[in-house]
Amino acid sequence: MWSQLQLTPESAIPLYRQLFERIRDRILLGDLPDGARIPATRELAGLIGLNRTTVSAAYELLERQGLIRGHVGRGSFVERPARVAAPVESQIAIQTQFPPTPSGIISFATSRPAAELFPMEECSRTIAEVATGADLGRILQLGSPLGYEPLRDYLRHQMRAAGTLGPSDDLLMTSGCQQAQDLLIRTLVQPGELVMMEDPVYPGLREALQRAGARLAGVPVTAEGLDLDEASRILQRERIKLIFVTPTFQNPTGATLPQAARADLIRLAAQHGATIVENDVYSALRYEGEPIPSIKQTSPGEVIQLGSFSKIAFPGLRVGWILAPRHVIDSCAAGKQWMDLHSDHLSQAVLLQFARTGRLEAHTRRVVAAGAEKLAAALSACADHLPEGTGFTRPAGGMNIWVRLPHPLDASALLRHAEEQGVSYLPGRYFAIGRGEPGSLRLSFAGLEASRIREGISILGALFTQELRRERQGGYGRQATAIV
Amino acid sequence: MWSQLQLTPESAIPLYRQLFERIRDRILLGDLPDGARIPATRELAGLIGLNRTTVSAAYELLERQGLIRGHVGRGSFVERPARVAAPVESQIAIQTQFPPTPSGIISFATSRPAAELFPMEECSRTIAEVATGADLGRILQLGSPLGYEPLRDYLRHQMRAAGTLGPSDDLLMTSGCQQAQDLLIRTLVQPGELVMMEDPVYPGLREALQRAGARLAGVPVTAEGLDLDEASRILQRERIKLIFVTPTFQNPTGATLPQAARADLIRLAAQHGATIVENDVYSALRYEGEPIPSIKQTSPGEVIQLGSFSKIAFPGLRVGWILAPRHVIDSCAAGKQWMDLHSDHLSQAVLLQFARTGRLEAHTRRVVAAGAEKLAAALSACADHLPEGTGFTRPAGGMNIWVRLPHPLDASALLRHAEEQGVSYLPGRYFAIGRGEPGSLRLSFAGLEASRIREGISILGALFTQELRRERQGGYGRQATAIV
Repeated sequence: MWSQLQLTPESAIPLYRQLFERIRDRILLGDLPDGARIPATRELAGLIGLNRTTVSAAYELLERQGLIRGHVGRGSFVERPARVAAPVESQIAIQTQFPPTPSGIISFATSRPAAELFPMEECSRTIAEVATGADLGRILQLGSPLGYEPLRDYLRHQMRAAGTLGPSDDLLMTSGCQQAQDLLIRTLVQPGELVMMEDPVYPGLREALQRAGARLAGVPVTAEGLDLDEASRILQRERIKLIFVTPTFQNPTGATLPQAARADLIRLAAQHGATIVENDVYSALRYEGEPIPSIKQTSPGEVIQLGSFSKIAFPGLRVGWILAPRHVIDSCAAGKQWMDLHSDHLSQAVLLQFARTGRLEAHTRRVVAAGAEKLAAALSACADHLPEGTGFTRPAGGMNIWVRLPHPLDASALLRHAEEQGVSYLPGRYFAIGRGEPGSLRLSFAGLEASRIREGISILGALFTQELRRERQGGYGRQATAIV
Repeated sequence: MWSQLQLTPESAIPLYRQLFERIRDRILLGDLPDGARIPATRELAGLIGLNRTTVSAAYELLERQGLIRGHVGRGSFVERPARVAAPVESQIAIQTQFPPTPSGIISFATSRPAAELFPMEECSRTIAEVATGADLGRILQLGSPLGYEPLRDYLRHQMRAAGTLGPSDDLLMTSGCQQAQDLLIRTLVQPGELVMMEDPVYPGLREALQRAGARLAGVPVTAEGLDLDEASRILQRERIKLIFVTPTFQNPTGATLPQAARADLIRLAAQHGATIVENDVYSALRYEGEPIPSIKQTSPGEVIQLGSFSKIAFPGLRVGWILAPRHVIDSCAAGKQWMDLHSDHLSQAVLLQFARTGRLEAHTRRVVAAGAEKLAAALSACADHLPEGTGFTRPAGGMNIWVRLPHPLDASALLRHAEEQGVSYLPGRYFAIGRGEPGSLRLSFAGLEASRIREGISILGALFTQELRRERQGGYGRQATAIV
């Protein structure tokens, strides 16, 4: 079959992407069964008359999606998707929920709110109020692709008060921020188009873009957010229509773009005819310092903003939104109805009631107070326990700290050892657009209690320190470790 | 800009589709503003060196999506999507819900359950039980792309008992059947691939396929369902991977494929290496006669089946599913998490509780009893009032009757007159894959009370009869009508 993979060299879709898709398809359809051997890059390149780099790029993508795996000295083999942990929040949720995480494991892997802070009694009352409310009939019947009207009204009112709603803006409710990204991408991005985003970035954005056939222009993130000089260089060189950015407490780095840089980014985008898509799901989680106006607040009417309740309250209810100029919302609404007609009404009605009764605000205050304590615990534990030469971000909010271990430590290779010692995290390569830094990792602290955070980081610190010492003892020491 | 539309002749995506996408993109991004003139097909064909048929096909797609509109003698112009009624259930829901349908209008346009049958008090109680139940913590937290585990368990148990669950099958919960279709298409269909389905068909399937770049092979539907001879001819000629079919009370025709034909279709698919995707959302709505085993029941383990609660209970909660061999479910789960991580848990928990307490079964009995009365009213009114020469299907269940008016009546042209007289329906062309029959229309009776059904069909019958008389009076009479 390998010699019969048909590619279209003249297509707008790059060859490596076409090759990736053909092989992925064969795997997903079962034509290439679990464990089937994949030819070496040189071999396949020869068979179908392609450059070897092209084949390598396709294989890299297959590997990143967990569809093939290389075994040293034996070659590469098909992996059935279900058996592979894809680099995602919710895959991780599967692993930790079904079966539940053993209570011994301290997991820094998932960026989600702490369940023990959910105000269960208030939430029960809220749902019961919706159940007996006057609007239940409308909630149960089919509705508009735009979402549950009373919630849209409420949010528009809030956004108008906050100066976030542009004069011609409208709002479309989605099933969480992931769907907001996917819908926007399906509506605005054509295969082969180049889209700009942070590198590292939330894998849900990267994957949704790759599935849409987009090409990715990753811009490095510093502790001060997106590197604007690099962004500017790319914009001068390439035609970029969309710039995805999470300016406040970015996932995975926790970095925040300063106010002046936000204004610069808006100017830069306008100058090159690009539209900014601002992911604003973390800004309510500020534990210290003054809030910085969002990019959308700075330039309402121009910017598309994505939001969600899920980082504060009840991610299992999947309520997010797109705020954008009306013509974009209209196009998204057309797409939304072919995706799922509209998002479930009940969860939208529950979050509306939770917000309207003031319970959301009170809950947010509790989450922020708890988050401040967690963040302080995490930062001081990083300072106390991580080996000398380690860098880490110092966010003023959000859920994540980005750690850069000193050379030659490899966060992916070390993960298994960490898990053996009862601590989990996500290696930086899960978030990479380019090759990624082997020493980087993400610590998501928001779901854990402060004492567990301290305990977990001290275990990691001891492991990393010991490993660094071993590595620095030279070749013999390296050989002695089982980490490859 | 017209001469600069860049197409890729060698791409797997057909040229008309590429052209459609380029123009759609310009419209959606506002480069082509509302009211902008679109060049004549001949003019554009000349400008970019294309066949005129190609340009016409692209324009047809644009028009079908409500993005351009032709004005006789003046040319075609851009229409902003929001101002156009797209041919969909939920767009119609917008029209009828925001603002609500004037109580005078009798709408046969939407295929959805009657809201007045919703057992509101039982539903309130069900939601309240979930709100105070032991599983609320899990419901509120992030979960698996596969869906809410207790509901999956319950459904698998039911399906095993019904002989629907194949030995290696699994289940993935979706946001309604529309998302089940879209997810399956995104997972299994590559751009340019040919997919088989009924013609006429539910537009949500057609649009999801077109957005995925699939080519459509429509097979005519008779009163006995899919025309198997034509299906066989196409399968012999073309490589078809997927066959979408709604064998029981198909939307829009109401047609049901007999048991023997189901076995033939299974053999035909196996013989040509095609996979059947069975949409089974209507089969519980049988008002008379014995149930026919579904295609999935006839051949579990081979067939993919899509299901939903929405045709019986609470479509606003958006709970559907894909039942398929595990390797297909695994691939869908990978896609699902990039679409929206997973579907809202709360509505899944509510429907589980509604089913587990026996309330769903009791509600289904009431819906079926009421449906039998509605169907009988609709069929006898059709026989009594529609003009001689009209054909209509006589389904034994479901929500829809398909009507074929005698030549030269045009159901699209007549709709405005019907609406002036307080009755609405959907013209057949909304459901067409090919050109469609101008005289066809769909009557969705399930959402209306029997007395309203009789009233509405008698108004339509009088209008059609009068119009037919006028048409048959010859050219002068035709000119005298305002129907163009």
